[in-house]
Amino acid sequence: MIKHLVIVGVGLIGGSFALDLKRQGLVERVTGIGRSRANLETALQLGVIDVIGRNLASAAANADLIMLAVPVGAMPAVFTELAPVLPPNCIVTDAGSTKQDVIAAARAGLGERVAQFVPGHPIAGAETNGAAAARIGLYVDKPLILTPLPENRAADVRLVESLWGACGARLARMEALLHDQVFAAVSHLPHLLAFALMDELASRPHAEIYFRYAGAGLRDATRIAGSHPEMWRDITLANREPLLDELDAMVEKLKSVRELVATRDGAALEEVFARARQARESWLQGKFNE
Amino acid sequence: MIKHLVIVGVGLIGGSFALDLKRQGLVERVTGIGRSRANLETALQLGVIDVIGRNLASAAANADLIMLAVPVGAMPAVFTELAPVLPPNCIVTDAGSTKQDVIAAARAGLGERVAQFVPGHPIAGAETNGAAAARIGLYVDKPLILTPLPENRAADVRLVESLWGACGARLARMEALLHDQVFAAVSHLPHLLAFALMDELASRPHAEIYFRYAGAGLRDATRIAGSHPEMWRDITLANREPLLDELDAMVEKLKSVRELVATRDGAALEEVFARARQARESWLQGKFNE
Repeated sequence: MIKHLVIVGVGLIGGSFALDLKRQGLVERVTGIGRSRANLETALQLGVIDVIGRNLASAAANADLIMLAVPVGAMPAVFTELAPVLPPNCIVTDAGSTKQDVIAAARAGLGERVAQFVPGHPIAGAETNGAAAARIGLYVDKPLILTPLPENRAADVRLVESLWGACGARLARMEALLHDQVFAAVSHLPHLLAFALMDELASRPHAEIYFRYAGAGLRDATRIAGSHPEMWRDITLANREPLLDELDAMVEKLKSVRELVATRDGAALEEVFARARQARESWLQGKFNE
Repeated sequence: MIKHLVIVGVGLIGGSFALDLKRQGLVERVTGIGRSRANLETALQLGVIDVIGRNLASAAANADLIMLAVPVGAMPAVFTELAPVLPPNCIVTDAGSTKQDVIAAARAGLGERVAQFVPGHPIAGAETNGAAAARIGLYVDKPLILTPLPENRAADVRLVESLWGACGARLARMEALLHDQVFAAVSHLPHLLAFALMDELASRPHAEIYFRYAGAGLRDATRIAGSHPEMWRDITLANREPLLDELDAMVEKLKSVRELVATRDGAALEEVFARARQARESWLQGKFNE
């Protein structure tokens, strides 16, 4: 039971976390902190939070758990602000999409008290945002990854894990480096591809003709290009090194496909397509979850 | 009213066309022709066709309209087979995803009688296929593009158009070259990106870890990588030149995004993402349909 939960950044991710814990009676009081007063008012009206915090320092002073659900680029400033006011028994956790850089920011900002920070990442992004998007059950069957620090108390890690477990998440732990490499590949690269494809088409002189005839294929392929630009700027910069590797790999892959098209190598093209289709089917059938 | 419609390739596209016309009483009898006996039996059982044709020659002999809904790579052989048996008043049309190459195949196969061929492309692909996927209403509000030939009789073009109109399609006409360029951009490139991304990830040594944590973003972004490999091999080769231009443009675009990541140019990245998101919203709100 958490007496006082502080959510920094009350959007889809932070808001849904609060809603689930409140509904289950696992938290007594939720204070919301954020940049947008209008968004916090919405959160209050929707019952996502109980109180709008005046500022992080005052809210943190008597917090038991602080969830940082701000864009990863905003994390360093939050840790710096948090350092002088963080109560000794308060646990801090986050929902950032990258982990190495958030951990580095926590170490820089919190110093020795980084032991109180349990890094996490719920895999439940969507292209909606703001407190109005928060909903009960968002995390059911979604992966939740913790990348605990050597300094963390085992009990703190277990507590954070138990809260996510109560939200219905599938729990996992891994190294921050592996986490960042995996998500550069399966999330950040696909987002950049979708943004790049959409911007490329939209920048053409006769873009309106293109879009008039574009169908469901392009719509679904670029759904994630509807994601929040600032948030994805931050993720992209935060996970720069693994993402550069992924972009290089994708450029090489496209060049190799181009070569097959240029040389009219139908058999090899069909192999690429068939392998891709098969891998996708295996994935969606859950063959990689065992 | 079409007395005898012959569908060559009774899958999602050809089958749904037949279903809609039959339901509206616009066709009296439908003969299905195809490679797979099992698929034709399914089509017969589902009422998609009335008769399984013995072969194209015998079915075509007393046909009023022949719809070619086979992979574009199979078109040349079909036109060659059709040439000696095509009745003088029979109209041939197609549903191929590329138009310049199908027209070239029609000219090569049919000679002067290419005047009877009205090239078309319904924009209603899906990653399902076979007669079992056929359904009434597939074409409602979907674009249907005709790329008529100078040799076509105006009345034939109007007849084909009226049948698609009866299926609920949004009718358009354009030059075959423009058609192929537009679809290289909005359909064929996105398919190749999805296939390439999926194959790239699946080919990694620890692919299972990647897919274990991949979420809805990758799933939707690669939905079209579930498309039929043989069909997409054909489309890719058929629309080779425009597609090579698109692949080159996309590689350049990815390299420019990579440069922004490498130089940590957050402002420029955010601009790319914001433009992409804005273009997508405008498109989905129908701003390009006016």
